[in-house]
Amino acid sequence: MIKKLLSEKKWFFEEPIPYDVSNAIIGMKIKKKLYAGKSTFQNIELYDTYDFGRILVLDGILQTSEKDEFVYHEMLCQVPMFLHENPQKVLIIGGGDGGSLEEALKHKVEKVWMVEIDEKVIDLSRKYLPSISKGAFKNKKAEIVVGDGKEFIKRYHDFFDVVILDLSDPAGPAKDLISLNFYKKVKRALKKNGIVSIQSGSLDDQIKLVATIFKRIKKIFPVAEIRRAVIPSYWEEYSFIIGSTANLKKIAFKDIEKKYKKLKLDLKYYSPEIHFASKVLPKYLKEKIKCQ
Amino acid sequence: MIKKLLSEKKWFFEEPIPYDVSNAIIGMKIKKKLYAGKSTFQNIELYDTYDFGRILVLDGILQTSEKDEFVYHEMLCQVPMFLHENPQKVLIIGGGDGGSLEEALKHKVEKVWMVEIDEKVIDLSRKYLPSISKGAFKNKKAEIVVGDGKEFIKRYHDFFDVVILDLSDPAGPAKDLISLNFYKKVKRALKKNGIVSIQSGSLDDQIKLVATIFKRIKKIFPVAEIRRAVIPSYWEEYSFIIGSTANLKKIAFKDIEKKYKKLKLDLKYYSPEIHFASKVLPKYLKEKIKCQ
Repeated sequence: MIKKLLSEKKWFFEEPIPYDVSNAIIGMKIKKKLYAGKSTFQNIELYDTYDFGRILVLDGILQTSEKDEFVYHEMLCQVPMFLHENPQKVLIIGGGDGGSLEEALKHKVEKVWMVEIDEKVIDLSRKYLPSISKGAFKNKKAEIVVGDGKEFIKRYHDFFDVVILDLSDPAGPAKDLISLNFYKKVKRALKKNGIVSIQSGSLDDQIKLVATIFKRIKKIFPVAEIRRAVIPSYWEEYSFIIGSTANLKKIAFKDIEKKYKKLKLDLKYYSPEIHFASKVLPKYLKEKIKCQ
Repeated sequence: MIKKLLSEKKWFFEEPIPYDVSNAIIGMKIKKKLYAGKSTFQNIELYDTYDFGRILVLDGILQTSEKDEFVYHEMLCQVPMFLHENPQKVLIIGGGDGGSLEEALKHKVEKVWMVEIDEKVIDLSRKYLPSISKGAFKNKKAEIVVGDGKEFIKRYHDFFDVVILDLSDPAGPAKDLISLNFYKKVKRALKKNGIVSIQSGSLDDQIKLVATIFKRIKKIFPVAEIRRAVIPSYWEEYSFIIGSTANLKKIAFKDIEKKYKKLKLDLKYYSPEIHFASKVLPKYLKEKIKCQ
Protein backbone atom coordinates (compact mmCIF):
# COMPACT_ATOMS: atom_id res chain seq x y z
CA MET A 1 0.00 0.00 0.00
CA ILE A 2 2.70 2.47 1.01
CA LYS A 3 4.72 1.80 -2.13
CA LYS A 4 1.63 2.29 -4.27
CA LEU A 5 0.82 5.55 -2.50
CA LEU A 6 4.37 6.80 -2.77
CA SER A 7 4.59 6.02 -6.46
CA GLU A 8 1.26 7.61 -7.35
CA LYS A 9 1.28 10.84 -5.48
CA LYS A 10 3.30 13.81 -4.45
CA TRP A 11 3.92 13.92 -0.74
CA PHE A 12 5.26 16.33 1.81
CA PHE A 13 6.97 14.40 4.61
CA GLU A 14 7.69 16.29 7.77
CA GLU A 15 11.18 16.10 9.25
CA PRO A 16 11.46 14.83 12.81
CA ILE A 17 10.80 17.80 15.11
CA PRO A 18 13.34 18.82 17.74
CA TYR A 19 12.76 16.99 21.02
CA ASP A 20 10.90 14.38 18.97
CA VAL A 21 11.38 10.68 19.38
CA SER A 22 11.61 10.41 15.57
CA ASN A 23 10.00 7.03 15.21
CA ALA A 24 7.14 8.19 13.03
CA ILE A 25 6.68 9.15 9.41
CA ILE A 26 3.89 11.55 8.56
CA GLY A 27 3.09 12.53 5.02
CA MET A 28 0.53 14.81 3.44
CA LYS A 29 -0.59 14.56 -0.15
CA ILE A 30 0.19 17.74 -2.08
CA LYS A 31 -1.52 19.25 -5.07
CA LYS A 32 1.26 21.66 -5.86
CA LYS A 33 4.56 22.98 -4.63
CA LEU A 34 4.14 26.76 -4.39
CA TYR A 35 7.63 27.71 -3.28
CA ALA A 36 10.86 26.15 -2.08
CA GLY A 37 13.90 28.18 -1.20
CA LYS A 38 16.26 29.42 1.47
CA SER A 39 16.36 32.59 3.51
CA THR A 40 19.29 33.79 5.65
CA PHE A 41 17.79 31.85 8.53
CA GLN A 42 16.08 28.72 7.28
CA ASN A 43 14.64 26.59 4.50
CA ILE A 44 11.18 27.72 3.49
CA GLU A 45 8.60 25.66 1.59
CA LEU A 46 4.98 26.31 0.71
CA TYR A 47 2.62 23.64 -0.60
CA ASP A 48 -0.99 23.37 -1.55
CA THR A 49 -2.27 20.14 0.03
CA TYR A 50 -5.43 18.09 -0.43
CA ASP A 51 -6.47 18.00 3.22
CA PHE A 52 -5.09 21.12 4.84
CA GLY A 53 -5.15 23.78 2.14
CA ARG A 54 -1.91 25.71 1.83
CA ILE A 55 0.83 24.95 4.34
CA LEU A 56 3.98 26.79 5.43
CA VAL A 57 7.02 24.64 6.18
CA LEU A 58 10.20 25.94 7.87
CA ASP A 59 13.31 23.74 8.04
CA GLY A 60 11.16 20.76 7.09
CA ILE A 61 8.57 21.30 9.83
CA LEU A 62 4.97 22.30 9.21
CA GLN A 63 4.22 25.65 10.85
CA THR A 64 0.70 26.42 9.82
CA SER A 65 -2.09 25.29 7.51
CA GLU A 66 -5.01 27.21 6.07
CA LYS A 67 -7.41 24.57 7.36
CA ASP A 68 -6.69 24.74 11.06
CA GLU A 69 -4.50 27.79 11.72
CA PHE A 70 -7.42 29.30 13.61
CA VAL A 71 -7.15 26.64 16.34
CA TYR A 72 -3.50 27.49 16.96
CA HIS A 73 -3.82 31.26 16.62
CA GLU A 74 -7.00 31.60 18.69
CA MET A 75 -5.57 29.49 21.52
CA LEU A 76 -2.26 31.36 21.49
CA CYS A 77 -3.72 34.89 21.22
CA GLN A 78 -7.30 34.98 22.45
CA VAL A 79 -6.53 33.39 25.82
CA PRO A 80 -4.18 36.23 26.91
CA MET A 81 -6.27 38.90 25.16
CA PHE A 82 -9.36 37.80 27.10
CA LEU A 83 -7.46 37.34 30.37
CA HIS A 84 -6.06 40.88 30.25
CA GLU A 85 -8.46 43.54 31.43
CA ASN A 86 -7.63 46.03 28.72
CA PRO A 87 -4.86 44.99 26.31
CA GLN A 88 -3.61 48.13 24.56
CA LYS A 89 0.00 47.43 23.65
CA VAL A 90 0.64 43.98 22.27
CA LEU A 91 3.94 42.47 21.13
CA ILE A 92 4.18 39.39 18.95
CA ILE A 93 7.58 37.77 18.55
CA GLY A 94 7.72 35.50 15.52
CA GLY A 95 4.39 34.86 13.85
CA GLY A 96 5.58 35.71 10.34
CA ASP A 97 2.43 34.25 8.75
CA GLY A 98 0.38 37.10 10.27
CA GLY A 99 -2.18 34.85 11.98
CA SER A 100 -1.39 36.08 15.49
CA LEU A 101 -1.36 39.67 14.27
CA GLU A 102 -4.84 39.20 12.89
CA GLU A 103 -6.09 37.69 16.17
CA ALA A 104 -4.65 40.51 18.31
CA LEU A 105 -6.10 43.16 15.98
CA LYS A 106 -9.60 41.76 16.51
CA HIS A 107 -9.47 43.62 19.84
CA LYS A 108 -9.63 47.39 20.34
CA VAL A 109 -5.91 47.78 20.88
CA GLU A 110 -3.73 50.86 20.63
CA LYS A 111 -0.97 49.10 18.73
CA VAL A 112 0.42 45.67 17.89
CA TRP A 113 4.15 45.21 17.24
CA MET A 114 5.15 42.12 15.34
CA VAL A 115 8.86 41.31 15.42
CA GLU A 116 9.79 38.60 12.94
CA ILE A 117 13.40 37.77 12.24
CA ASP A 118 12.83 36.42 8.73
CA GLU A 119 11.48 38.96 6.25
CA LYS A 120 11.17 36.26 3.62
CA VAL A 121 8.61 34.40 5.76
CA ILE A 122 6.54 37.60 5.94
CA ASP A 123 6.80 38.26 2.21
CA LEU A 124 5.94 34.68 1.23
CA SER A 125 3.07 34.53 3.71
CA ARG A 126 1.64 37.78 2.36
CA LYS A 127 1.88 36.35 -1.14
CA TYR A 128 0.70 32.78 -0.58
CA LEU A 129 -1.23 32.82 2.71
CA PRO A 130 -3.42 35.96 2.64
CA SER A 131 -6.28 33.85 4.07
CA ILE A 132 -4.31 33.60 7.34
CA SER A 133 -3.36 37.25 7.88
CA LYS A 134 -6.60 38.57 6.34
CA GLY A 135 -5.25 42.05 5.68
CA ALA A 136 -3.69 42.44 9.14
CA PHE A 137 -0.32 43.46 7.67
CA LYS A 138 -1.99 46.56 6.23
CA ASN A 139 -3.76 47.51 9.46
CA LYS A 140 -2.70 50.97 10.69
CA LYS A 141 -2.38 49.69 14.25
CA ALA A 142 0.19 47.09 13.17
CA GLU A 143 3.90 47.83 13.27
CA ILE A 144 5.92 45.17 11.49
CA VAL A 145 9.54 44.99 12.61
CA VAL A 146 12.03 42.76 10.84
CA GLY A 147 14.54 41.85 13.50
CA ASP A 148 15.61 39.71 16.39
CA GLY A 149 12.93 39.49 19.08
CA LYS A 150 15.42 39.00 21.87
CA GLU A 151 17.24 42.23 20.95
CA PHE A 152 13.99 44.14 20.41
CA ILE A 153 12.52 43.26 23.78
CA LYS A 154 15.62 44.46 25.67
CA ARG A 155 14.69 48.07 24.83
CA TYR A 156 11.33 47.93 26.61
CA HIS A 157 10.61 48.16 30.33
CA ASP A 158 7.12 48.14 31.83
CA PHE A 159 5.59 48.72 28.43
CA PHE A 160 3.49 45.89 26.91
CA ASP A 161 0.18 44.53 28.15
CA VAL A 162 0.45 41.24 26.29
CA VAL A 163 3.46 39.49 24.75
CA ILE A 164 2.80 36.59 22.38
CA LEU A 165 5.64 34.20 21.58
CA ASP A 166 4.60 32.66 18.27
CA LEU A 167 7.82 30.79 17.65
CA SER A 168 8.95 27.75 15.73
CA ASP A 169 10.62 24.87 17.55
CA PRO A 170 13.71 25.84 19.57
CA ALA A 171 16.22 24.64 16.99
CA GLY A 172 16.50 27.19 14.16
CA PRO A 173 16.23 30.97 14.62
CA ALA A 174 14.08 30.48 17.76
CA LYS A 175 16.56 28.35 19.66
CA ASP A 176 17.48 30.98 22.30
CA LEU A 177 13.89 32.02 22.89
CA ILE A 178 13.02 29.48 25.55
CA SER A 179 15.81 30.50 27.96
CA LEU A 180 15.24 31.71 31.50
CA ASN A 181 17.15 34.84 30.57
CA PHE A 182 14.85 35.60 27.65
CA TYR A 183 11.73 35.04 29.76
CA LYS A 184 13.15 37.48 32.34
CA LYS A 185 13.41 40.11 29.63
CA VAL A 186 9.83 39.40 28.59
CA LYS A 187 8.70 39.95 32.17
CA ARG A 188 10.63 43.22 32.39
CA ALA A 189 9.05 44.42 29.14
CA LEU A 190 5.56 43.69 30.47
CA LYS A 191 3.55 46.15 32.50
CA LYS A 192 2.24 45.18 35.92
CA ASN A 193 -0.52 42.61 35.34
CA GLY A 194 0.89 41.93 31.88
CA ILE A 195 0.59 38.49 30.32
CA VAL A 196 2.90 36.38 28.18
CA SER A 197 1.48 33.60 25.99
CA ILE A 198 3.72 30.89 24.56
CA GLN A 199 3.35 28.11 22.01
CA SER A 200 5.04 25.47 24.10
CA GLY A 201 5.14 22.27 22.07
CA SER A 202 3.47 18.89 21.65
CA LEU A 203 2.00 17.13 24.67
CA ASP A 204 3.19 13.84 23.26
CA ASP A 205 6.54 14.03 21.46
CA GLN A 206 7.77 17.21 23.11
CA ILE A 207 6.56 16.64 26.65
CA LYS A 208 10.01 17.42 28.10
CA LEU A 209 10.07 20.75 26.25
CA VAL A 210 6.60 21.56 27.63
CA ALA A 211 7.77 20.72 31.16
CA THR A 212 10.91 22.84 30.70
CA ILE A 213 9.00 25.91 29.49
CA PHE A 214 6.40 25.53 32.24
CA LYS A 215 9.10 25.25 34.93
CA ARG A 216 10.87 28.36 33.66
CA ILE A 217 7.70 30.45 33.41
CA LYS A 218 6.65 29.34 36.89
CA LYS A 219 10.04 30.36 38.20
CA ILE A 220 9.73 33.90 36.85
CA PHE A 221 6.03 34.66 37.00
CA PRO A 222 3.81 34.26 40.07
CA VAL A 223 1.11 32.74 37.88
CA ALA A 224 1.66 30.02 35.24
CA GLU A 225 -1.12 28.22 33.41
CA ILE A 226 -1.18 25.59 30.71
CA ARG A 227 -3.83 24.90 28.09
CA ARG A 228 -4.16 22.29 25.36
CA ALA A 229 -5.72 21.99 21.93
CA VAL A 230 -5.54 19.61 19.01
CA ILE A 231 -4.26 21.09 15.77
CA PRO A 232 -5.13 18.43 13.16
CA SER A 233 -2.29 19.32 10.76
CA TYR A 234 0.20 18.86 13.63
CA TRP A 235 -1.25 15.37 14.28
CA GLU A 236 -0.97 15.93 17.99
CA GLU A 237 -2.24 17.84 20.97
CA TYR A 238 -0.30 21.04 21.61
CA SER A 239 0.27 23.12 24.69
CA PHE A 240 -0.02 26.85 25.31
CA ILE A 241 1.55 28.34 28.41
CA ILE A 242 0.57 31.62 30.05
CA GLY A 243 2.70 33.58 32.53
CA SER A 244 1.51 36.61 34.45
CA THR A 245 2.04 38.85 37.45
CA ALA A 246 -1.74 39.31 37.70
CA ASN A 247 -3.89 37.08 39.87
CA LEU A 248 -5.56 35.20 37.01
CA LYS A 249 -7.24 32.75 39.37
CA LYS A 250 -9.79 35.33 40.39
CA ILE A 251 -11.03 35.58 36.79
CA ALA A 252 -14.25 33.56 36.69
CA PHE A 253 -16.24 32.07 33.85
CA LYS A 254 -18.77 34.90 34.04
CA ASP A 255 -16.01 37.50 33.57
CA ILE A 256 -14.75 35.88 30.38
CA GLU A 257 -18.30 35.25 29.17
CA LYS A 258 -19.26 38.91 29.70
CA LYS A 259 -16.28 40.12 27.67
CA TYR A 260 -16.91 37.49 24.99
CA LYS A 261 -20.54 38.54 24.57
CA LYS A 262 -19.64 42.21 24.55
CA LEU A 263 -16.86 41.98 21.97
CA LYS A 264 -18.62 39.56 19.59
CA LEU A 265 -15.42 38.64 17.79
CA ASP A 266 -15.39 36.33 14.80
CA LEU A 267 -13.96 33.18 16.43
CA LYS A 268 -14.21 29.52 15.48
CA TYR A 269 -12.37 27.75 18.30
CA TYR A 270 -12.03 29.94 21.38
CA SER A 271 -15.03 30.45 23.67
CA PRO A 272 -15.48 31.04 27.42
CA GLU A 273 -16.17 27.30 27.77
CA ILE A 274 -12.98 26.40 25.87
CA HIS A 275 -11.04 29.01 27.90
CA PHE A 276 -11.61 26.95 31.04
CA ALA A 277 -12.03 23.41 29.67
CA SER A 278 -8.69 23.58 27.83
CA LYS A 279 -6.95 24.05 31.21
CA VAL A 280 -8.01 20.61 32.40
CA LEU A 281 -5.24 18.07 31.93
CA PRO A 282 -5.42 14.34 32.54
CA LYS A 283 -3.45 13.01 35.49
CA TYR A 284 -0.73 11.36 33.39
CA LEU A 285 0.11 14.65 31.64
CA LYS A 286 0.02 16.66 34.87
CA GLU A 287 2.53 14.22 36.31
CA LYS A 288 4.82 14.43 33.27
CA ILE A 289 4.76 18.24 33.17
CA LYS A 290 4.77 18.58 36.95
CA CYS A 291 2.28 21.42 36.59
CA GLN A 292 -0.09 20.59 39.46
CA MET B 1 14.80 11.98 4.19
CA ILE B 2 11.76 9.76 3.64
CA LYS B 3 13.69 7.43 1.35
CA LYS B 4 16.48 7.16 3.91
CA LEU B 5 13.99 6.41 6.68
CA LEU B 6 12.15 3.87 4.57
CA SER B 7 15.32 2.06 3.59
CA GLU B 8 16.74 1.92 7.10
CA LYS B 9 13.84 0.86 9.20
CA LYS B 10 10.88 -1.39 9.49
CA TRP B 11 7.63 0.49 9.39
CA PHE B 12 3.98 -0.17 9.97
CA PHE B 13 1.90 2.05 7.69
CA GLU B 14 -1.76 2.36 8.52
CA GLU B 15 -4.32 1.83 5.76
CA PRO B 16 -6.72 4.70 5.08
CA ILE B 17 -9.56 4.36 7.57
CA PRO B 18 -13.18 4.14 6.40
CA TYR B 19 -14.73 7.59 6.04
CA ASP B 20 -11.19 8.92 5.78
CA VAL B 21 -10.09 11.45 3.23
CA SER B 22 -7.02 9.26 2.57
CA ASN B 23 -4.58 12.02 1.80
CA ALA B 24 -2.16 11.17 4.57
CA ILE B 25 0.50 8.57 5.20
CA ILE B 26 1.29 7.66 8.78
CA GLY B 27 4.01 5.23 9.69
CA MET B 28 5.33 3.89 12.97
CA LYS B 29 8.76 2.39 13.38
CA ILE B 30 8.58 -1.22 14.51
CA LYS B 31 11.02 -3.28 16.52
CA LYS B 32 9.43 -6.60 15.69
CA LYS B 33 6.49 -8.20 13.95
CA LEU B 34 4.82 -10.38 16.57
CA TYR B 35 2.07 -11.88 14.45
CA ALA B 36 0.44 -11.53 11.05
CA GLY B 37 -2.43 -13.71 9.92
CA LYS B 38 -6.08 -13.97 9.02
CA SER B 39 -9.14 -14.92 11.01
CA THR B 40 -12.59 -15.74 9.58
CA PHE B 41 -13.40 -12.05 9.86
CA GLN B 42 -10.31 -9.95 9.26
CA ASN B 43 -6.57 -9.54 8.87
CA ILE B 44 -4.81 -9.39 12.23
CA GLU B 45 -1.33 -8.03 12.89
CA LEU B 46 0.59 -7.42 16.08
CA TYR B 47 3.80 -5.37 16.24
CA ASP B 48 6.18 -4.16 18.87
CA THR B 49 6.87 -0.49 18.09
CA TYR B 50 9.45 1.99 19.33
CA ASP B 51 7.03 4.69 20.42
CA PHE B 52 3.80 2.97 21.34
CA GLY B 53 4.79 -0.41 22.74
CA ARG B 54 2.84 -3.30 21.29
CA ILE B 55 0.04 -2.49 18.88
CA LEU B 56 -2.95 -4.45 17.57
CA VAL B 57 -3.88 -3.90 13.92
CA LEU B 58 -7.12 -5.15 12.32
CA ASP B 59 -7.58 -4.93 8.54
CA GLY B 60 -4.61 -2.57 8.39
CA ILE B 61 -5.97 -0.16 11.00
CA LEU B 62 -4.41 0.39 14.42
CA GLN B 63 -6.87 -0.55 17.15
CA THR B 64 -4.92 -0.14 20.34
CA SER B 65 -1.42 0.45 21.69
CA GLU B 66 0.10 -0.40 25.03
CA LYS B 67 1.24 3.18 25.46
CA ASP B 68 -2.09 4.98 25.32
CA GLU B 69 -4.86 2.36 25.45
CA PHE B 70 -5.81 3.78 28.85
CA VAL B 71 -6.93 7.07 27.28
CA TYR B 72 -9.32 5.27 24.94
CA HIS B 73 -10.57 2.67 27.43
CA GLU B 74 -11.05 5.08 30.34
CA MET B 75 -12.96 7.57 28.18
CA LEU B 76 -15.14 4.84 26.66
CA CYS B 77 -15.87 2.96 29.91
CA GLN B 78 -15.39 5.20 32.95
CA VAL B 79 -17.70 7.95 31.67
CA PRO B 80 -20.80 5.67 31.59
CA MET B 81 -19.71 3.74 34.71
CA PHE B 82 -19.47 7.00 36.67
CA LEU B 83 -22.66 8.44 35.16
CA HIS B 84 -24.69 5.38 36.15
CA GLU B 85 -25.80 5.36 39.77
CA ASN B 86 -25.08 1.69 40.36
CA PRO B 87 -23.88 -0.27 37.32
CA GLN B 88 -24.36 -3.96 38.07
CA LYS B 89 -24.85 -5.63 34.70
CA VAL B 90 -22.50 -4.43 31.98
CA LEU B 91 -22.31 -5.54 28.37
CA ILE B 92 -19.32 -4.89 26.13
CA ILE B 93 -19.72 -5.54 22.42
CA GLY B 94 -16.36 -5.89 20.69
CA GLY B 95 -13.36 -5.00 22.80
CA GLY B 96 -11.44 -8.19 22.05
CA ASP B 97 -8.23 -6.79 23.55
CA GLY B 98 -9.82 -6.89 27.02
CA GLY B 99 -9.13 -3.24 27.87
CA SER B 100 -12.79 -2.29 28.28
CA LEU B 101 -13.41 -5.45 30.29
CA GLU B 102 -10.66 -4.44 32.66
CA GLU B 103 -12.08 -0.91 33.04
CA ALA B 104 -15.63 -2.15 33.77
CA LEU B 105 -14.34 -4.68 36.32
CA LYS B 106 -12.66 -1.89 38.31
CA HIS B 107 -16.19 -1.20 39.61
CA LYS B 108 -18.19 -3.36 42.04
CA VAL B 109 -20.34 -4.93 39.35
CA GLU B 110 -22.38 -8.11 39.44
CA LYS B 111 -21.26 -9.29 36.02
CA VAL B 112 -19.67 -8.08 32.78
CA TRP B 113 -20.50 -9.80 29.50
CA MET B 114 -18.05 -9.32 26.67
CA VAL B 115 -19.31 -10.35 23.24
CA GLU B 116 -16.54 -10.41 20.67
CA ILE B 117 -17.11 -11.88 17.23
CA ASP B 118 -13.49 -12.81 16.57
CA GLU B 119 -12.07 -15.43 18.95
CA LYS B 120 -8.66 -15.05 17.36
CA VAL B 121 -8.49 -11.39 18.47
CA ILE B 122 -9.16 -12.51 22.04
CA ASP B 123 -6.59 -15.31 21.89
CA LEU B 124 -3.89 -13.13 20.37
CA SER B 125 -4.61 -10.28 22.78
CA ARG B 126 -4.35 -12.65 25.75
CA LYS B 127 -1.04 -13.88 24.39
CA TYR B 128 0.57 -10.64 23.23
CA LEU B 129 -1.25 -7.83 25.08
CA PRO B 130 -1.66 -9.03 28.68
CA SER B 131 -0.69 -5.52 29.84
CA ILE B 132 -3.99 -4.24 28.41
CA SER B 133 -6.44 -6.79 29.89
CA LYS B 134 -4.43 -7.18 33.12
CA GLY B 135 -5.99 -10.50 34.08
CA ALA B 136 -9.58 -9.36 33.36
CA PHE B 137 -10.26 -12.41 31.16
CA LYS B 138 -9.77 -14.62 34.23
CA ASN B 139 -12.03 -12.53 36.49
CA LYS B 140 -14.96 -14.59 37.84
CA LYS B 141 -17.36 -11.74 37.11
CA ALA B 142 -16.43 -11.77 33.41
CA GLU B 143 -18.38 -13.83 30.90
CA ILE B 144 -16.65 -14.00 27.55
CA VAL B 145 -18.96 -14.80 24.66
CA VAL B 146 -17.63 -15.45 21.19
CA GLY B 147 -20.38 -14.36 18.87
CA ASP B 148 -22.20 -11.65 16.99
CA GLY B 149 -23.12 -8.72 19.24
CA LYS B 150 -26.18 -7.82 17.21
CA GLU B 151 -27.61 -11.34 17.62
CA PHE B 152 -26.66 -11.51 21.30
CA ILE B 153 -28.36 -8.26 22.24
CA LYS B 154 -31.68 -9.29 20.66
CA ARG B 155 -32.20 -11.79 23.48
CA TYR B 156 -32.14 -9.17 26.22
CA HIS B 157 -34.91 -6.78 27.28
CA ASP B 158 -34.64 -4.34 30.15
CA PHE B 159 -31.54 -6.10 31.43
CA PHE B 160 -28.22 -4.16 31.27
CA ASP B 161 -27.24 -1.06 33.20
CA VAL B 162 -24.43 -0.09 30.85
CA VAL B 163 -23.70 -1.17 27.28
CA ILE B 164 -20.26 -0.34 25.85
CA LEU B 165 -19.75 -0.47 22.08
CA ASP B 166 -16.01 -0.98 21.71
CA LEU B 167 -16.05 -1.51 17.97
CA SER B 168 -13.65 -1.12 15.09
CA ASP B 169 -14.54 1.18 12.18
CA PRO B 170 -17.85 0.39 10.49
CA ALA B 171 -16.32 -1.47 7.52
CA GLY B 172 -15.31 -4.99 8.59
CA PRO B 173 -17.21 -7.12 11.12
CA ALA B 174 -18.60 -3.99 12.83
CA LYS B 175 -20.23 -2.50 9.72
CA ASP B 176 -23.86 -3.09 10.81
CA LEU B 177 -23.28 -1.86 14.35
CA ILE B 178 -23.93 1.82 13.74
CA SER B 179 -27.45 1.36 12.33
CA LEU B 180 -30.57 2.92 13.81
CA ASN B 181 -32.00 -0.58 14.10
CA PHE B 182 -29.05 -1.83 16.13
CA TYR B 183 -29.19 1.18 18.46
CA LYS B 184 -32.90 0.48 19.02
CA LYS B 185 -31.99 -3.02 20.15
CA VAL B 186 -29.36 -1.59 22.48
CA LYS B 187 -31.99 0.67 24.02
CA ARG B 188 -34.40 -2.23 24.47
CA ALA B 189 -31.68 -4.29 26.16
CA LEU B 190 -30.96 -1.47 28.62
CA LYS B 191 -32.82 -1.03 31.88
CA LYS B 192 -34.57 2.24 32.63
CA ASN B 193 -31.82 4.83 33.22
CA GLY B 194 -29.36 2.59 31.41
CA ILE B 195 -26.48 4.10 29.45
CA VAL B 196 -24.81 3.22 26.15
CA SER B 197 -21.27 4.40 25.43
CA ILE B 198 -19.87 4.37 21.90
CA GLN B 199 -16.46 4.86 20.31
CA SER B 200 -17.68 7.14 17.55
CA GLY B 201 -14.70 8.02 15.37
CA SER B 202 -12.19 10.76 14.66
CA LEU B 203 -13.21 14.41 15.03
CA ASP B 204 -11.13 15.24 11.98
CA ASP B 205 -11.18 12.55 9.28
CA GLN B 206 -14.42 10.88 10.35
CA ILE B 207 -16.48 13.91 11.28
CA LYS B 208 -19.40 12.74 9.12
CA LEU B 209 -19.42 9.39 10.91
CA VAL B 210 -19.43 11.19 14.28
CA ALA B 211 -22.36 13.35 13.14
CA THR B 212 -24.23 10.28 11.88
CA ILE B 213 -23.83 8.34 15.13
CA PHE B 214 -24.77 11.39 17.20
CA LYS B 215 -27.89 11.99 15.14
CA ARG B 216 -28.99 8.37 15.48
CA ILE B 217 -28.39 8.22 19.23
CA LYS B 218 -30.24 11.50 19.70
CA LYS B 219 -33.16 10.11 17.74
CA ILE B 220 -33.50 7.08 19.99
CA PHE B 221 -32.40 8.29 23.41
CA PRO B 222 -33.74 11.38 25.17
CA VAL B 223 -30.20 12.26 26.23
CA ALA B 224 -27.14 12.26 23.95
CA GLU B 225 -23.73 13.58 24.92
CA ILE B 226 -20.40 13.76 23.15
CA ARG B 227 -16.91 13.81 24.62
CA ARG B 228 -13.46 14.07 23.09
CA ALA B 229 -9.94 12.91 23.85
CA VAL B 230 -6.64 12.67 22.02
CA ILE B 231 -5.25 9.17 21.62
CA PRO B 232 -1.65 9.78 20.48
CA SER B 233 -1.32 6.49 18.55
CA TYR B 234 -4.43 7.43 16.53
CA TRP B 235 -2.80 10.79 15.65
CA GLU B 236 -6.12 12.51 16.08
CA GLU B 237 -8.80 13.57 18.51
CA TYR B 238 -11.52 10.97 18.94
CA SER B 239 -15.13 11.17 19.99
CA PHE B 240 -17.13 9.17 22.51
CA ILE B 241 -20.91 9.34 22.43
CA ILE B 242 -23.26 8.57 25.32
CA GLY B 243 -26.96 7.79 25.00
CA SER B 244 -29.33 7.43 27.95
CA THR B 245 -32.93 7.50 29.11
CA ALA B 246 -31.75 8.99 32.42
CA ASN B 247 -31.59 12.73 32.99
CA LEU B 248 -27.81 13.02 32.94
CA LYS B 249 -27.90 16.81 33.01
CA LYS B 250 -28.78 16.82 36.69
CA ILE B 251 -25.51 15.03 37.51
CA ALA B 252 -23.21 17.73 38.85
CA PHE B 253 -19.46 17.91 39.30
CA LYS B 254 -19.80 17.24 43.02
CA ASP B 255 -21.71 14.00 42.34
CA ILE B 256 -18.99 12.61 40.09
CA GLU B 257 -16.28 13.87 42.44
CA LYS B 258 -17.91 12.17 45.43
CA LYS B 259 -18.06 8.84 43.61
CA TYR B 260 -14.50 9.26 42.31
CA LYS B 261 -13.12 9.90 45.78
CA LYS B 262 -15.08 7.03 47.28
CA LEU B 263 -14.09 4.43 44.68
CA LYS B 264 -10.41 5.39 44.43
CA LEU B 265 -9.90 3.50 41.17
CA ASP B 266 -6.52 3.24 39.50
CA LEU B 267 -7.04 5.72 36.62
CA LYS B 268 -4.57 7.72 34.56
CA TYR B 269 -6.80 9.78 32.28
CA TYR B 270 -10.36 10.01 33.58
CA SER B 271 -11.15 12.36 36.48
CA PRO B 272 -14.21 14.41 37.52
CA GLU B 273 -12.57 17.42 35.86
CA ILE B 274 -12.00 15.49 32.62
CA HIS B 275 -15.56 14.11 32.80
CA PHE B 276 -16.91 17.63 32.31
CA ALA B 277 -14.10 19.36 30.39
CA SER B 278 -14.10 16.68 27.68
CA LYS B 279 -17.72 17.62 26.87
CA VAL B 280 -16.73 21.11 25.75
CA LEU B 281 -16.38 21.31 21.98
CA PRO B 282 -15.16 24.26 19.95
CA LYS B 283 -17.74 26.05 17.84
CA TYR B 284 -16.47 24.69 14.50
CA LEU B 285 -16.87 21.08 15.66
CA LYS B 286 -20.30 21.69 17.20
CA GLU B 287 -21.42 23.09 13.88
CA LYS B 288 -20.04 20.14 11.92
CA ILE B 289 -21.60 17.54 14.23
CA LYS B 290 -24.78 19.57 14.76
CA CYS B 291 -24.69 18.54 18.40
CA GLN B 292 -25.62 21.83 20.05
